[in-house]
Amino acid sequence: MTKQELINQIKQKKSFLCIGLDTDITKIPQYLLKEEDPIFEFNKQIIDATKDLCVAYKPNTAFYESLGAKGWESLEKTIDYIPKDIFTIADAKRGDIGNTSKMYAKAFLETLNFDSVTVAPYMGNDSVEPFLEIKDKWVILLALTSNKGADDFQFFDNGNEKLFERVLKQSKQWGDDENLMYVVGATRPEMFAEIRSIVPDSFLLVPGVGAQGGSLSEVCKYGMNKDCGLLVNSSRGIIYAGNDENFAAAARNSALQIQKEMAILLEEFLK
Amino acid sequence: MTKQELINQIKQKKSFLCIGLDTDITKIPQYLLKEEDPIFEFNKQIIDATKDLCVAYKPNTAFYESLGAKGWESLEKTIDYIPKDIFTIADAKRGDIGNTSKMYAKAFLETLNFDSVTVAPYMGNDSVEPFLEIKDKWVILLALTSNKGADDFQFFDNGNEKLFERVLKQSKQWGDDENLMYVVGATRPEMFAEIRSIVPDSFLLVPGVGAQGGSLSEVCKYGMNKDCGLLVNSSRGIIYAGNDENFAAAARNSALQIQKEMAILLEEFLK
Repeated sequence: MTKQELINQIKQKKSFLCIGLDTDITKIPQYLLKEEDPIFEFNKQIIDATKDLCVAYKPNTAFYESLGAKGWESLEKTIDYIPKDIFTIADAKRGDIGNTSKMYAKAFLETLNFDSVTVAPYMGNDSVEPFLEIKDKWVILLALTSNKGADDFQFFDNGNEKLFERVLKQSKQWGDDENLMYVVGATRPEMFAEIRSIVPDSFLLVPGVGAQGGSLSEVCKYGMNKDCGLLVNSSRGIIYAGNDENFAAAARNSALQIQKEMAILLEEFLK
Repeated sequence: MTKQELINQIKQKKSFLCIGLDTDITKIPQYLLKEEDPIFEFNKQIIDATKDLCVAYKPNTAFYESLGAKGWESLEKTIDYIPKDIFTIADAKRGDIGNTSKMYAKAFLETLNFDSVTVAPYMGNDSVEPFLEIKDKWVILLALTSNKGADDFQFFDNGNEKLFERVLKQSKQWGDDENLMYVVGATRPEMFAEIRSIVPDSFLLVPGVGAQGGSLSEVCKYGMNKDCGLLVNSSRGIIYAGNDENFAAAARNSALQIQKEMAILLEEFLK
């Protein structure tokens, strides 16, 4: 999917919501366990109930891998089921030497045919470039994450800049706002202005609203650009909103609340 | 596997060789493609031919994931086939927020039952700890990698220390030399002395000897400690030493050359 196509989807749906499919076999309604593939059945119902309210789905690969080959099959069925006009993110946080990153790029952007994959920057340029070489696909590079451990290394400072700022600056030599987005956690909205000064036109994938405590309006105030430029993710707050036969309706209701708030914020900031 | 058990294996076999199972469907002998599971058949023959010469096997997960669920099945069969007295490394370079790293820990250290998994440090403490919580299992944390892109961020310097040194120092608060090893590339042997001053007793997993150009004797000169403290990996140089019906014998021969050199180096440095 191109940047313009993503922007068009955001405008049409009045939403920049990304729904995280962190599907945990121990947290889904127990009556689904009688299905042949409970994980896929859960995802299918979540997708059916929310696909008009979000512009992206983000399966978190860890949850599928924890179930072995069977989990990987559930992931394959899920990505095939997501409508093609919705942006797909393999939240995989990969990154390795060049010939290995090439294999990960093949795994997620070709075999599974995701639109994008999240990549960790620690190993530098040649660990990221193989993903960027695939046409019309995206890298979403970790910059400033939403977790407590982000303090350990991402704020490491050489006197001129912090590590996450260096990652943003350096990576602009590898790709551009047509194939490179960044993960920036909602738990530090005060950092968005600084980040926007480095990557004004790039999309930011923003986890941490909801369960992790970030504020949507604060994120928009500091992080939105003229094209919106944000994909705000919610996982647990939506997919586990209910825990019985009506779980999909509960998920829809939760997604709808966020989408309504997003419609107002888009109106306010993009007028 | 405990640290002492690993040391015992090294002494018995006079080897600190780790064989990387970067098994690529396009590079294995073509006659294997008629097998039901060519990847596993290749690995099986490599393991049979080399298991007395190495102390560790390191499947690189990217190569298996690139084949989808079928690749994941080949990985499951491979890990089950490796003899239990050989240390196993899931070279997966994972790392995510706590509840997600917990799923990755489950995937690799419980479901697949690897002894260890490689982890990327960018997201800090809570992305690493869930792996460390599993008894008798290991994290192998990226410190200084062997690739060119290591220069981009790992040498980022705050005036007192470089990022990879900070990773080494900080991580000592999370685990110890009984559950934490580090990836240090062979392509920078001059850095081993500095690294040993920070983590004198820890095992280092050393890629980059062979195809990537690192020198085994240089690595030992600067990196070996009183227990050996090194697992030196070779992947392509061993597993693709031959490309016909005799590929396993060729792999054995290549591994044997390295093991013989290692026996001499162990004699020299551990006397």
